This record gives sequence, structure tokens and C-alpha cells, in this order.
Amino acid sequence: MDIKGVEIEDTYAEAFPIKVARVLITAANKHWAEVAALEATGFGTSVIMCPAEAGIEKFVTGDETPDGRPGVYIQICTFGYKALEEQLLERIGQCVLTAPTTAVFNGLPDAEKQFDTGFKLKFFADGTESETEVAGRKAYKIPMMEGDFIVEHSLGAVEGVAGGNFFIFADCQLTGLAAAENAVAAIQELEGSITPFPGGIVASGSKPGANKYKFLKATANEKFCPSIKDKVEGTEIPADVNVVYELVINGTSVDAVGKAIAAGIKAAVATHGVKKITAGNYGGNLGPHKFNLHDLL
Amino acid sequence: MDIKGVEIEDTYAEAFPIKVARVLITAANKHWAEVAALEATGFGTSVIMCPAEAGIEKFVTGDETPDGRPGVYIQICTFGYKALEEQLLERIGQCVLTAPTTAVFNGLPDAEKQFDTGFKLKFFADGTESETEVAGRKAYKIPMMEGDFIVEHSLGAVEGVAGGNFFIFADCQLTGLAAAENAVAAIQELEGSITPFPGGIVASGSKPGANKYKFLKATANEKFCPSIKDKVEGTEIPADVNVVYELVINGTSVDAVGKAIAAGIKAAVATHGVKKITAGNYGGNLGPHKFNLHDLL
Amino acid sequence: MDIKGVEIEDTYAEAFPIKVARVLITAANKHWAEVAALEATGFGTSVIMCPAEAGIEKFVTGDETPDGRPGVYIQICTFGYKALEEQLLERIGQCVLTAPTTAVFNGLPDAEKQFDTGFKLKFFADGTESETEVAGRKAYKIPMMEGDFIVEHSLGAVEGVAGGNFFIFADCQLTGLAAAENAVAAIQELEGSITPFPGGIVASGSKPGANKYKFLKATANEKFCPSIKDKVEGTEIPADVNVVYELVINGTSVDAVGKAIAAGIKAAVATHGVKKITAGNYGGNLGPHKFNLHDLL
Amino acid sequence: MDIKGVEIEDTYAEAFPIKVARVLITAANKHWAEVAALEATGFGTSVIMCPAEAGIEKFVTGDETPDGRPGVYIQICTFGYKALEEQLLERIGQCVLTAPTTAVFNGLPDAEKQFDTGFKLKFFADGTESETEVAGRKAYKIPMMEGDFIVEHSLGAVEGVAGGNFFIFADCQLTGLAAAENAVAAIQELEGSITPFPGGIVASGSKPGANKYKFLKATANEKFCPSIKDKVEGTEIPADVNVVYELVINGTSVDAVGKAIAAGIKAAVATHGVKKITAGNYGGNLGPHKFNLHDLL
Repeated sequence: MDIKGVEIEDTYAEAFPIKVARVLITAANKHWAEVAALEATGFGTSVIMCPAEAGIEKFVTGDETPDGRPGVYIQICTFGYKALEEQLLERIGQCVLTAPTTAVFNGLPDAEKQFDTGFKLKFFADGTESETEVAGRKAYKIPMMEGDFIVEHSLGAVEGVAGGNFFIFADCQLTGLAAAENAVAAIQELEGSITPFPGGIVASGSKPGANKYKFLKATANEKFCPSIKDKVEGTEIPADVNVVYELVINGTSVDAVGKAIAAGIKAAVATHGVKKITAGNYGGNLGPHKFNLHDLL
Repeated sequence: MDIKGVEIEDTYAEAFPIKVARVLITAANKHWAEVAALEATGFGTSVIMCPAEAGIEKFVTGDETPDGRPGVYIQICTFGYKALEEQLLERIGQCVLTAPTTAVFNGLPDAEKQFDTGFKLKFFADGTESETEVAGRKAYKIPMMEGDFIVEHSLGAVEGVAGGNFFIFADCQLTGLAAAENAVAAIQELEGSITPFPGGIVASGSKPGANKYKFLKATANEKFCPSIKDKVEGTEIPADVNVVYELVINGTSVDAVGKAIAAGIKAAVATHGVKKITAGNYGGNLGPHKFNLHDLL
Repeated sequence: MDIKGVEIEDTYAEAFPIKVARVLITAANKHWAEVAALEATGFGTSVIMCPAEAGIEKFVTGDETPDGRPGVYIQICTFGYKALEEQLLERIGQCVLTAPTTAVFNGLPDAEKQFDTGFKLKFFADGTESETEVAGRKAYKIPMMEGDFIVEHSLGAVEGVAGGNFFIFADCQLTGLAAAENAVAAIQELEGSITPFPGGIVASGSKPGANKYKFLKATANEKFCPSIKDKVEGTEIPADVNVVYELVINGTSVDAVGKAIAAGIKAAVATHGVKKITAGNYGGNLGPHKFNLHDLL
Repeated sequence: MDIKGVEIEDTYAEAFPIKVARVLITAANKHWAEVAALEATGFGTSVIMCPAEAGIEKFVTGDETPDGRPGVYIQICTFGYKALEEQLLERIGQCVLTAPTTAVFNGLPDAEKQFDTGFKLKFFADGTESETEVAGRKAYKIPMMEGDFIVEHSLGAVEGVAGGNFFIFADCQLTGLAAAENAVAAIQELEGSITPFPGGIVASGSKPGANKYKFLKATANEKFCPSIKDKVEGTEIPADVNVVYELVINGTSVDAVGKAIAAGIKAAVATHGVKKITAGNYGGNLGPHKFNLHDLL
């Protein structure tokens, strides 16, 4: 199978369950919503050594937000709900409540699982807080130095999916990077998925475990490393390929992650110099979800 | 004392010691250096509930970097060196090594305290790594999917200063925000200091402890909250003030933090509508460093 | 009538016919599409003293472009088709053909009026050009220093509308600016309309002609100038208003401009501190199109 | 000669005299200064078909501006002073006076040639204007919808230099583009020079005149076109080169342009994949200024 002359390998991305909270941040304009979202989702690429996986899902204009201001949906992901509740309290409390002009709303109001993060944050007001309502949602008004911070009572979460992925092979590093960047932009138009790595892109796709340094949980996937392709037996890197970028995609559902993989691949192949698309799987050891590229496209 | 007609209160900012690592990230262009820096310094506003305080110090062009590419200095701060070493390994390993086109260099090569973070990160290459040298600095070349990641062997740290600050009083929220934004931009021209909060600005300046909710370490400083000025006895908010933004400044030295406070104040007062500048102190209970505003200006 | 507590005055915006060309620029990523679009639409706020009115309509991802790359629609407007053809040739030839990684496609392929701008630009190749086809569109491949520039044979134009507008009254300058900025962002989500002034916003809304300096075609509309409200008889500025920003909207049709006015107003009123929305008209002397605000909302 | 392993050809850039006005725009923050500067310098790449050559010189923080706010220096260039005065009036009047929160100051107060552009713009106020002083500079306060616009009485100009240049040869298009982008960023740190093309970069470097289409003043320089290197006799494109980007540099003096060329080249060669640097000259027919690359470096 190929799209625009780029081979799509007949393989699948392997993914695993994770707990996902989804939060809507609004602000005076898009810029300040983004500033808060970047702070709140930073240090959040992989649960291997970060306290959560987190990222920006999509930006929305005021006609889609409870307070009519521009906003951004973020997702925060951990393996268990207890860790997720802590991360929500810490990241919203330290990185959004503190950010200029923001307000916080529930991004999954219909989910069964709800955390009372807003209720807990109101104690910051030390007794000066009050209950309020925004577009029918129960919220709190917290007097602060900049004025009143509005936060919804509850923030919802679901069992979602982590580790959806695909790989972009290209002739030159910055060609591959442009393709990856366009894939991330296409995914940010969709609902329900995030790409938690820096700028949405993984420069250092890994394999579980190690050949040599057994004390590590994950190491470079040498068969996909272009600079040593001549030295690695069984390399997956063709002669005309000099870079591989991976996109890792988390989301609130299998459907959201599948759609994001498809949209990302379609965006990536339009860059002249992209040679091949494939995906990462590890014999089913990593997780129960399989995203077959040909089925998605 | 006043500058451009804005009163500078005769008071001081109170600050405390912290351990500070300083790291130089370079990348293919300024954009990708910034992407990596934002991820690596995210979830890093206050050690009250973040694993570190972290931020961007300044951007540099290639004539100031070992590999000639555009770069950005970041700082990561924790109370102890053990926590700092862990944070460096986690934040550089998960948020910069994984980011497109980056390399990592020591931002404090002359400091006494040096961590072998680069040495530890090289194990990611699972045996395919090699030693190299960049502009006389001992470094490692780590083959990855995007090509070779370069990281210097050591990353240095010093005992620095946290909690330097000043407050901007303005007539209207977005006036105060513009003043604060310009102050952050002026500080980013300087060496040695960071403003770790979102976009460099604190919307929710706090007091230590609480009046009512004693279980909290920090709560809103109600005397500086404009929306309740009519209800709070002893409010510090004049009638014509409707917003207060705080800048919190960390740095590698007392001198760096003092210069940043001065530059920030000078930038802030140029915004029409700024009414007063003051600073936060808590009777010397918070820390040993005192930054007297009048002395700095 | 009010929305979110903001009065919408019962009045109309007056607008006039103009010729509008619509062009799709694609590029390696969104950033470089925007760079080319800003250059091509610069010096293009008002035909009073600019050679054209021009602006960015909307950004699109690759699934909406002929070559699958990210793109941006721009519009260029003049009173006559002859001037429009010259402006197209000059602005596309000097500002897009010269810009990194761009390609140019017809934004109005079904319009009756078509200019052969692509055909004319191919002569730049000095005999090395060739005809090609992109997604069924006749185009030319022009070898250049960066590689091949692709430009579609024809670029279409229609009789559209210029001067659609509304005014935002707010309590403080930067409050009004945030409201205006959010209005522009909301309008950029729509098809068919542009806001040709800098950043989409007019700081200096004018009246036709002059009271004192009769040699000028347009001067400040003193009844809407907050800083002199106490001195101007018949001022339209209420006591609590200290800024007015105008949005001027051009578009390919009456319908497109009307939808843009409505979306812009809805976005603007969500900013706390906006006091009133009105619109500019001059007794029908300016043009035949009337956009009644209450009818649109 | 080589730098970082990149060959610098022993050749010179040929440049010619032009008249240059230099203007300082300040605004509420850097963003709005940039918005005004981009509008005012747009449609300004080459006098071949644009009414002026124009670009951003450098951004400055408030400690370098008369009103203490963030600012940006722009340059506007034409062959004669008469055209320059018209362009100044049109571009400042239509693109900066109209832009949110801006003020305008003289960027060459010590130049012999001074235009009274500020004096002329004050008539927009239709009699409500007044004279004022900012940091010792004579200026006007023009009441407008957003408040008062401040413009200095005079704007200065000098005879400067246009067409300074160098070429970047690279292995792949986006590699060359990153190198060019970093060169532009390095030049924007300097005083006195601009890079008037889109994003500062020329994708379509030309030769004067034509081989085939004699009616054109400038056509593609086929000897520097990588996509046809196999068909062009005497091609200058080596086998491993697939892109050439040119930087064109104007400036207020020979010295400023020379320093910009040197800084740009040093920044460009740090990008891995850059193969060679050269420059454009046409046997001295284009202009009297010669910038020898080896002498500059």
C-alpha cells in the first residue's frame, strides 16, 4: 500500500490502557491559554521517568467554551486514578491557577469518574471563595492577586489509550521533522488525542529493555537508528533514509487514537522526501490495543 | 521614590537559598530549542507542589554556543543536590534527549558541583554510543532514530537564590499583564536569572500558611486581592488598582537576582496604567536574602 | 439587545463593492505559509493610501490543499480588475515566488473572472519551466535556487465587499485589544472574509473627509475618540469607556462578511470589560451594503 | 578557506546605493510591535516590482526606546528621496498609525536628511492634535479611537546600501532553510541591516536580464538551480547539493552590511548539511560596492 508514492508498511502500532483526565483551560486570548497549557503539560512525555504523560489536545475558540473565551483542551495521563488525582491537583494548582487570566473547566463532564479538584483548589482562597455557576456548571470563584480565578467543581477522567504511534522515514533530518510537525498539526485539529512528546514528536524512539545495559527499562531501538545502519545487523533503515521520527499518541478512546494515527500519516506523506511509514510493536507484550495501519487508512 | 511617575515602595523582597543547575540546549533553530526548553522546564513553578522550579534564562545565537547552533539556557532548582541530580536526569533524559534536533551542554562548567548526567544518559544508546568532543568539551554521541544526540559529560550546579520578587499594581488586568510580560522579556535579556511561573508571571501571589485553612502551606494573600479589597481589613490595594501581578525570580547568584528585579521594574513602569511597584516579604521568616527595591534602582 | 450583558447598538455597518482575488499559498509547514502570506498581504490595510487591501483569510491543513501541505488563503482587493491583476502579479511574484518552500493555487477556481498570473510568472524560469498538474489543476514547475516552484495557471477573482465593520467599546485599552484579537481569531476560522488592518484591528477608525483639514480624504472620527471625550460635543463615548477598536472586514460575498461580523461580535463580548458594540455608517454615502447588527446576531 | 568544514568561495557580493529611512516602532509589548512592523514592511522585497524594499532590523527592549516600551527598528528603502518620503507617509500612516498600541520615533535623528512625516500625520487628528515631547524629542499626540497616538516630528534617512548577499548551498531543502533562518536571526541581533525578503530569505535568486525572455528585468539564475543541474551547461551546483538559499541584505552603511554578511555566514555554516557558501556578483554591472567574503570573515 502507498499514499502519494510513500510506502505504508503492513504492520500495526501496539498500545496499552492508561487513565486520562481531560481539562479545558480558557484565558484572555489564545496566547495565554497556550502558556498555561504548556506549563501544565510540561515534564510529561513518558511515564518511564515523568510523573505523568500530558499534552495539548486542541485549541478552541470562544463559541465552544463555557465562558466564551478562547481555550485549549489538555490531557493528563497516569496508570492509576490515585496518581492521576494527585497530578491533576498539582498541575492545575501550580501551573494553571497561577497562570495569568486562566479559568479551568471539566473536559469530560459526562465521564463516570470525577475528581473534585476544583473543590480542593478553592481552599487556596482561605475563606474568601464563593460558589458560582458558568453556563450551568458548578464552579468556584477564588479571589487572587490578578482578580477572580474560576474553576469548575469536578474534573472528569476515563480509561483511555497510550502509546499509539507511527514512524516517519525520510531522506534528511529536517525533511522528516517538517513531516512530523505537519502530522502533529493535523492531529491537533482532532478531538480526543494528544502527542505528549516535545512539540508532539519523538526523536529517540526506544525498544523495551536493553541488549547490553540490562538495568534500563528502555533503550534506543538500534534497528531504527540511521547513523549506525551500516553497523547494525538486521537494520530496518533503507539506504536512502537518514532520519526516523516517531509520533506517540495517547487519547481518550481507541477510536480517537486510531483517527489521529490516520490523520497524522496522511499529513506526513505530503512532505517531499518522506520515504516510508511504519509503526512500532513489540509482539503484543506492550499492550492489548493493535492499530493496523492499512485498516486505518 | 518614583520612576516615570510610578511609586516604588520602600520595601524589600525576601528570598531564600536553593540549588540551581544551569543547562544549555541547542537545536536546529530557535523554535526547536524553545520547544525542548518548555517541555523540560514545565510543571516547574514552585517547589510547594512541583518536583522542581525551572525556567528559561535566555536565548543565545550560535556565536555563543559550543556547536554554533541557536540555543537556550535553562535553570532547574531544588532544595537539595540529590533531588537536583534526579530532576536533571529525568528532565534532560525525558524532555530534551527525546526532542527533535537538540544537543545538551553544561551551563556552569566552572562550578565546583558537577553531575555526570551526560555520562548516565549515554547508556540509552545500549552500547552504540561513543565519546566525542565539542569545542573542547567532553561529550557523548548517542545514536537515535533522528541521528546522533550530543550530550556533554557533566552538568554543573551552584547554590543560588529563589523567591526574589516584585509586585506590579495596575488599573486594569490586561494593563498589568502587559507590564508583567515586558518585565519578563527584559529579564530574559540578562544572564543568570529565571522567572519560573507560567510565562514568567504569577497571577496568584500567596502568603505562607493560612488564616482559616490551616492544613495548607500557602494561601492567597488576601490583602493584595483587588476583587475583595472592600471586604478585607488592612487591604493593600488602593482604590484605583484592580490587578496585582507578581514576578518571582530565581537565579544563580544574589547579584543576578538583584539585577533581574531592577530590570523588570524598569520595564514594567513604562506601561501606562501601572500605579505602584512593591515587593513581598514575610518578616524575614522565609529566607536570609533581602532585596531592597530602592537600593537596586 | 445585549449579549452576555454587553449592549449591541441597533445600527448597521455600511460597506461597498470591491474586486477580490483569493489565493491559496501552501508551504513546508504552517510557519512558512504564514511568512509568505504576511509579506504578500503587507502594506495592504486601506486603498486610501495602500496599493491594495489584503489579508489572511484562514489557515488550512493538508487535507484541504491540492498538494497535501499546510496552507493559508489570502485575499487581495482593489476597486478595479486591472489594478487587481497588477497587484496579483506583483505580490505573488515578489512575495510568494520568492518565499521559502511555497506553492500557489487558485482560491476561486469556479469564478468567472480568471487571471493568468501563473502563466505570466512562469517566464521567470527563462525557458526552463514546464507544465505540470497538481490534483487535476493545470500548473507550472519553475526551477529556482531552492528547487521547483509550483504555481497554478489561473487565479480567480469576484466582486466582493469591503468595509464591513463593528466597533468594540471597552473600559481599558488592553481589554479592548484582547476582545478585538479574539474577534479576529474567530473570524479566521471562517471562510471568505479577511480583516486587512494590522493584526486584523483598526486603532484609528476614521470618518470620510474632515472638519478642519479639508485636503484629507479621511480623518479621525472625533466622536469616537476617548481621550478627548470631555471636549467633543456630541461624543459617542460613555463615561466608563476608554478605548474603541474597530474591525474592518472584507470578503468574497455579502454572506461571508455578515457571518464574520456576527462571529467577531460574539467573540468580543466574552472579554470582561467590554461595554458596548456598535458599527460605522455614514448615511449611506459610503456604499450600498448595509449590515444590520441585530439582524446578524 | 573554510569554516567548520564548509567551503567559503573566494568571491564577492556586489551591491548598490539606495536611500534608507529608519524608523522605531514601539508598542504595548513585543508582539504588537512586530504586528505593525510586518504590515509596514510587507510587499517590500525588491524594488523590481515592489514600491519599496523594507524589513525589520532588530527588536529592542524598553531600556533602548524613548517611551520605555518594547520596540522594533524597521528600514524602508527606495532609489530616490522623493519616493522614500511618499513610502514613509503611506506605510507609517496606513500600517503603523492604524496598528494597536503603537508609537513612532525617528530611527536616524542625527541624519542630515529629515522628513517631516510626523508633522504630516498629525493632520489625521483634524484639529484635535497637540505637540508633546518624549525623552526630549518633539512629537505629536493624535487622539484616535484607541487613545492617543504619539509620532515624532521628523524621520531621518541616509544613503545606504542594497543588495549585499550570500548564497547557502546545502544537501537538502529544509537543511538549507534552517541554515538561512539561523543566519537571519543572527543578523537581527545587529544594528543597521535588514533582510527584506520573506522571513529574510530568497528562494529564487535571480540574474539581471534573461537568456530567452528578453522582456524581463530579472530571471532565475539557472546555473544555481539544483533541479536542473544535469541539464544546464556550466552549472554551479555540485552533485551533493540540492538547494541554494540567498540572503539579500540592505543597510544604512557599507559597514553594517559587511558585518551582517559575516554574521550570517558564521551562523549558517553551523547547520550540518551545509556544503558551501558563495555570493552573487555580476561583473560590477550592478553596483559599486564589493563585499569580499574572505575579507569579511
